[in-house]
Amino acid sequence: MQIRVRYSETDAMGLLHHSNYLTYFEVGRTELFRAQGGNYRHMEELGLFFVVASINVRFRRPAGYDELLTLDTTVTRQTPARIEHHYELRRGDLVLCEADSVIACVNSDGTPVRIPDDLETLTGGTGEASQD
Amino acid sequence: MQIRVRYSETDAMGLLHHSNYLTYFEVGRTELFRAQGGNYRHMEELGLFFVVASINVRFRRPAGYDELLTLDTTVTRQTPARIEHHYELRRGDLVLCEADSVIACVNSDGTPVRIPDDLETLTGGTGEASQD
Amino acid sequence: MQIRVRYSETDAMGLLHHSNYLTYFEVGRTELFRAQGGNYRHMEELGLFFVVASINVRFRRPAGYDELLTLDTTVTRQTPARIEHHYELRRGDLVLCEADSVIACVNSDGTPVRIPDDLETLTGGTGEASQD
Amino acid sequence: MQIRVRYSETDAMGLLHHSNYLTYFEVGRTELFRAQGGNYRHMEELGLFFVVASINVRFRRPAGYDELLTLDTTVTRQTPARIEHHYELRRGDLVLCEADSVIACVNSDGTPVRIPDDLETLTGGTGEASQD
Repeated sequence: MQIRVRYSETDAMGLLHHSNYLTYFEVGRTELFRAQGGNYRHMEELGLFFVVASINVRFRRPAGYDELLTLDTTVTRQTPARIEHHYELRRGDLVLCEADSVIACVNSDGTPVRIPDDLETLTGGTGEASQD
Repeated sequence: MQIRVRYSETDAMGLLHHSNYLTYFEVGRTELFRAQGGNYRHMEELGLFFVVASINVRFRRPAGYDELLTLDTTVTRQTPARIEHHYELRRGDLVLCEADSVIACVNSDGTPVRIPDDLETLTGGTGEASQD
Repeated sequence: MQIRVRYSETDAMGLLHHSNYLTYFEVGRTELFRAQGGNYRHMEELGLFFVVASINVRFRRPAGYDELLTLDTTVTRQTPARIEHHYELRRGDLVLCEADSVIACVNSDGTPVRIPDDLETLTGGTGEASQD
Repeated sequence: MQIRVRYSETDAMGLLHHSNYLTYFEVGRTELFRAQGGNYRHMEELGLFFVVASINVRFRRPAGYDELLTLDTTVTRQTPARIEHHYELRRGDLVLCEADSVIACVNSDGTPVRIPDDLETLTGGTGEASQD
């Protein structure tokens, strides 16, 4: 998917502020989920939520205002309760940032729950589900 | 109250991005409500929410990274269903921004409801409630 | 133009937080400027900046997570130093929010300057420049 | 240092959105730098910038709206060109989140540069510099 850097997302260095990469990755997960037939909004209406358990981000090169970036989001591993994603953010062929996250499924109390089978199907699990 | 401009709140001009003024004003309303004995989090647990119906902002001078600003939030008018606030953001004596908002009370369906009497008391209504 | 509400842009009510409407309007101005042949990033490289002098927003109905919204941005008035825009944010035919802003052109010192003639041309000024 | 969760920082789950933890950590670094006699704004005026090279965040428990949190920021390692920080965000004694980051010093071209000696002194380097 493609994302254009908004002015409000830059900082005083004139570059994309590093906290906004996490919101891009979240958009990447949402669009990957949608592309696979899932609907995260519907999932929340059922009282199931994905929460980020950990994230590891390597910033390689900066991104500037108004640049049109490409984000690839991939499921790298899936267990009954967790999904691992890998992210690669590029400008053309140049890799700007790579990241890996672990998300867990919880109910409305925040208790970890098994990802329902049909959701497990929806989110792939082959580890090959590419988003572009 | 005092607010220090965060790096993430600046933009490529090196100045506080204008959308963040609205989050400052919201912090101002929360702290005014707290200073008057209210607790907005508790109010939400009762299924009552304040929503912004309109806001009018005049940006006079820019604010820079790491500057320590003073925000005065005042209730200027209150009716059974609406509260009007005035905001003045300053650096020392210099006024950087002035704004006025109208907030309405709604239930969890988004239907406008009368502000409960005790909340009406809590949020003042004299029009003189200054926050500093 | 179309904008999809990001999860990070929602608040505890499950709705688009009101401060994010201002970032949407800014994206609307950028895309309008681009559609008319301008390039705001290039303009900043020339040491010219548009700053928001005032904005007036009326929130009519809430927007929810993942909703695909339509934003129309229009130049309503232009003087040698200022441009006025009108914004209408809709979900389908339903108007969620309307706003009006005044932006001024400044140099890198923040001093108001005349909008250069070619930029004045680029940003339209007929008052009819619709973005969709 | 203490940070109160803003309404605009929550998401539709009613919890602090995970991207905002990174802005908290940045505030933590700024305040640690200030406590040690540094001034990041002044440093930028000299054409020197700290950029985040990598960050690793473990989210243990959620944080809710209006909660008053405690953030401890510590320098864990320092080389001529890089500083490593550790962060612990707590509510009372309960650890909500832990993180580690590597920041690098660059000039205005983005080229990595040696951290000037006096800055090296300012930012400590004993690895014991606690922020609270």
